[in-house]
Amino acid sequence: MSRRVLLTGATGFVGRHAGAALARRGFEVHAVARAPGPAAEGVAWHAADLLDGDAARRLVDRIRPTHLLHLAWYVEHGKFWHSPENLRWVAASLELVRAFRQAGGERAVLSGTCAEYEWGHGLCSEASTPTVPATLYGACKLALHQVVEAYARQSGMSAAWGRIFLLYGPHEPPARLVASVARALLRGEPAPCSHGMQVRDFLHAADAADAFAALLDSDVRGAVNIGSGEPVALRDVVQALAARAGRPDLLRLGALPAAPGDPAALTADVSRLRGEVGWSPALSLEAGLDDVVRWWRNDAHAPAGAR
Amino acid sequence: MSRRVLLTGATGFVGRHAGAALARRGFEVHAVARAPGPAAEGVAWHAADLLDGDAARRLVDRIRPTHLLHLAWYVEHGKFWHSPENLRWVAASLELVRAFRQAGGERAVLSGTCAEYEWGHGLCSEASTPTVPATLYGACKLALHQVVEAYARQSGMSAAWGRIFLLYGPHEPPARLVASVARALLRGEPAPCSHGMQVRDFLHAADAADAFAALLDSDVRGAVNIGSGEPVALRDVVQALAARAGRPDLLRLGALPAAPGDPAALTADVSRLRGEVGWSPALSLEAGLDDVVRWWRNDAHAPAGAR
Repeated sequence: MSRRVLLTGATGFVGRHAGAALARRGFEVHAVARAPGPAAEGVAWHAADLLDGDAARRLVDRIRPTHLLHLAWYVEHGKFWHSPENLRWVAASLELVRAFRQAGGERAVLSGTCAEYEWGHGLCSEASTPTVPATLYGACKLALHQVVEAYARQSGMSAAWGRIFLLYGPHEPPARLVASVARALLRGEPAPCSHGMQVRDFLHAADAADAFAALLDSDVRGAVNIGSGEPVALRDVVQALAARAGRPDLLRLGALPAAPGDPAALTADVSRLRGEVGWSPALSLEAGLDDVVRWWRNDAHAPAGAR
Repeated sequence: MSRRVLLTGATGFVGRHAGAALARRGFEVHAVARAPGPAAEGVAWHAADLLDGDAARRLVDRIRPTHLLHLAWYVEHGKFWHSPENLRWVAASLELVRAFRQAGGERAVLSGTCAEYEWGHGLCSEASTPTVPATLYGACKLALHQVVEAYARQSGMSAAWGRIFLLYGPHEPPARLVASVARALLRGEPAPCSHGMQVRDFLHAADAADAFAALLDSDVRGAVNIGSGEPVALRDVVQALAARAGRPDLLRLGALPAAPGDPAALTADVSRLRGEVGWSPALSLEAGLDDVVRWWRNDAHAPAGAR
């Protein structure tokens, strides 16, 4: 029997890689976004606004997916942490999951975040690290997770929840760390950074999409960290970028204050992802940064206002 | 400046008493329900279906309430614990709260439940009893609470969350404990019960409504248990009912098994409600049960199918 997956957020930072990753695993992919993305082998596009509950229900009733990979959310850089839009996406996600299950859907995977964890514990493990979100975004994702878990248990649906740590890659919002440093250096401008001693887990967006496809393709349930499992200091990341851009002289470590509340370490215990899902990244950090620098060198990618 | 409250669930078991309780405290009351309730001094009725997000937003934009008392939820007896309707009410409640705040709303109180607590701890305290819901209903209420708390903090709104324990009173769904025993005895039929050793907190629905009005009228934030603070064994409740109905001979304690998972004790620490809100019940359990027996004696209240 064919496995039909409804993929939301399909034109997003992770989602744009997910259609192909799902198709490679034999899924019949139905990608949804407000405006269709580029044509791709094995991917059918549907235009719909998930914030319109009726539209979401109609879509599910038409496609009748067996699987759901829900990546869509409000992600505007700098605003998403605290925006009331997070409440709309909890509501829209609940309507979507309910419609999916009521139309016969069998397995759902949704995207969560490391911001569900209480920061300050360093290595975050699904089973033992307390979930005490510091932000509205984290609180909304955690609340959605808890409802989906309870609903899945109650309705006999299989569900998992992928907690994303730090991502980078092409199409990254230009104000984020890797993108902003890469762009400044490639333009020959100074790149001011904080001290850079913060330790994080970095994963290329294409690898994140592939991890979600693998998680959906598995029977693993509950929360699963989506990360590389290789802690790295931010200063090592930006220094590697600077070396690739050929402008280590323009890096200004310590020129900016660290963000208030920024934890010293926030890294992913990936034992569930590796041991139970059986997934590990295809790209090393070095190869991923090569990819990013190559991508930003192509000036056509720069936002119009920034050229 | 006048204080305008939007009251949802205004025809419900608690809500039907809340309009008058709010009016007594000087609120201009705007009551909403799918169909308007009976005319009452100081209460304006609005017909709307809160599951329609657009209708909720239009209502809020028209009334521009300064206060919100949100009691509406899916409450069908026997089904509400596990129904997917709970997801719809989380979504609808989030839309309502967001619309309320964005239209200038200042203080919101929502109804929660003792089912948010992990059962088995006996006395439940807001600050220390773990919240590990055993049901979809409890999980949905807790998730809503967490999002509303985070949103209130973020947006500068004042918010509180009243956790209801066991209620009784007129208009109780006839299959619930107090109503079913009262009705059987008044019809001269045997009333089968479990052993009745379970200890609970009972509060009359009119007192619960008054407690919510007092909570809304206060500056107290966060979760607040709504209860009498007087633990009582179920057997003492039904024996008191039987005495009032004049048929202690028809009570069959032990004739039914206790519900699986039914905790031995589930009672409310009411120190926040008494000490911070300054509220205590007007009705003793004895006076409340007198009221219930009087109400069920009036056969006109019995559901048509049951006469």
